[in-house]
Amino acid sequence: MTPSTTSNLLVSPAELAGERVAVEGEPYRHLFRARRLASDARLRLVDGEGRARWAEVVTIDRRRAELRLLGEAPARDPSRRVELLVAAPRPERAAWLVEKATELGVAAVRFLASERAVRGVDAKSLARLGRIAGAALEQCGGARLPALSGPHEIAELSGLALPDQVYLLDPGATAPLPAGGNDSAAVLVGPEGGWTDDELAGLDAAASRVRLGERVLRVETAAIAAAALLLAG
Amino acid sequence: MTPSTTSNLLVSPAELAGERVAVEGEPYRHLFRARRLASDARLRLVDGEGRARWAEVVTIDRRRAELRLLGEAPARDPSRRVELLVAAPRPERAAWLVEKATELGVAAVRFLASERAVRGVDAKSLARLGRIAGAALEQCGGARLPALSGPHEIAELSGLALPDQVYLLDPGATAPLPAGGNDSAAVLVGPEGGWTDDELAGLDAAASRVRLGERVLRVETAAIAAAALLLAG
Repeated sequence: MTPSTTSNLLVSPAELAGERVAVEGEPYRHLFRARRLASDARLRLVDGEGRARWAEVVTIDRRRAELRLLGEAPARDPSRRVELLVAAPRPERAAWLVEKATELGVAAVRFLASERAVRGVDAKSLARLGRIAGAALEQCGGARLPALSGPHEIAELSGLALPDQVYLLDPGATAPLPAGGNDSAAVLVGPEGGWTDDELAGLDAAASRVRLGERVLRVETAAIAAAALLLAG
Repeated sequence: MTPSTTSNLLVSPAELAGERVAVEGEPYRHLFRARRLASDARLRLVDGEGRARWAEVVTIDRRRAELRLLGEAPARDPSRRVELLVAAPRPERAAWLVEKATELGVAAVRFLASERAVRGVDAKSLARLGRIAGAALEQCGGARLPALSGPHEIAELSGLALPDQVYLLDPGATAPLPAGGNDSAAVLVGPEGGWTDDELAGLDAAASRVRLGERVLRVETAAIAAAALLLAG
């Protein structure tokens, strides 16, 4: 039952609270065809909201399996709450960002509208990113999915109930982004062409400027490096 | 001449030491077609070994441009030397790892042979990864390319002149990977199925086990998160 050998399955909070769960479709194919779980196998169910339980396989039919839920399992979520507020990058890079953010245990990835952002997000792209986060959560063994949302206007940020500590990454800042630190923090990552002066005026009111090296990092690189630092320790 | 607006061009050390550089082929198309640099433009040349100079455009012909080299430019390389020693992941993930490692300023990415690694690297894949590193270096504004090498057998590691401080990532370790720290450090990242006991016996002699959270991270995620931590501050 080490993390590396246990299969994890993402289910709904209602399913996790019940006694039995049916597995069909793609999860069935993954667990019972590709990974060939046997009828006495144990696995770990997570609800995407930070709860986890052990389960055992009861029956395996041709297209469906049934699991019986057992006791509580470790959640393996970071205690610190780190949110990433990023100018939306290209879809392929947004996908990487969400996959890596999920693995590291980021609590939210929020996409910001910005004049120089490559493109926005919409309901369809958020749904796709949600599926990527689900697969990453099952792979890494966490129990809490990141909240994914956007596009948010900068003027709306104050309505998002952000953590008290908000950092704005700026290669020209003098203070470094600290490792670890507060129980919760958010990091603002601008587009590669930078925020406009008007955007910065809105952001500076809410955030402290910090640096993460002096190079021009891609949006997803800066976001993941910042998340790794803030979640450390 | 801020990092975000200056074009960077990777040239050979011999070219960087000279007075003039000719730009042809793909770099010509990128700089003079896509980015439309004008004949009075300034750009920054880097040699991949940590040196950088300003240059100005002298002539632009239909398939070739000529640059005149000027004074020394900032290198923007981290002072700390961080090496990543990773069980080779799939090509797409190795490409992402090398791109991000280059952006962050990692000094070397060395691919290790491991019984449970997805696949190895060969001369062709290393050449492709080298091109990815070159493009990433031009994008981020660093001056030093990471050394890329492999596959290395674990038994050969002692011949690689590694930093004194070598960490082995292990979700079961109690000590966390420290942020910042030594002037140089290497991090060993195993395959997702873990090292074999025989491999661990060879590695434990050379490395201290540390943890980076308790989740099972993908090779490239663990490597980039570790690099971000070690390069911080």
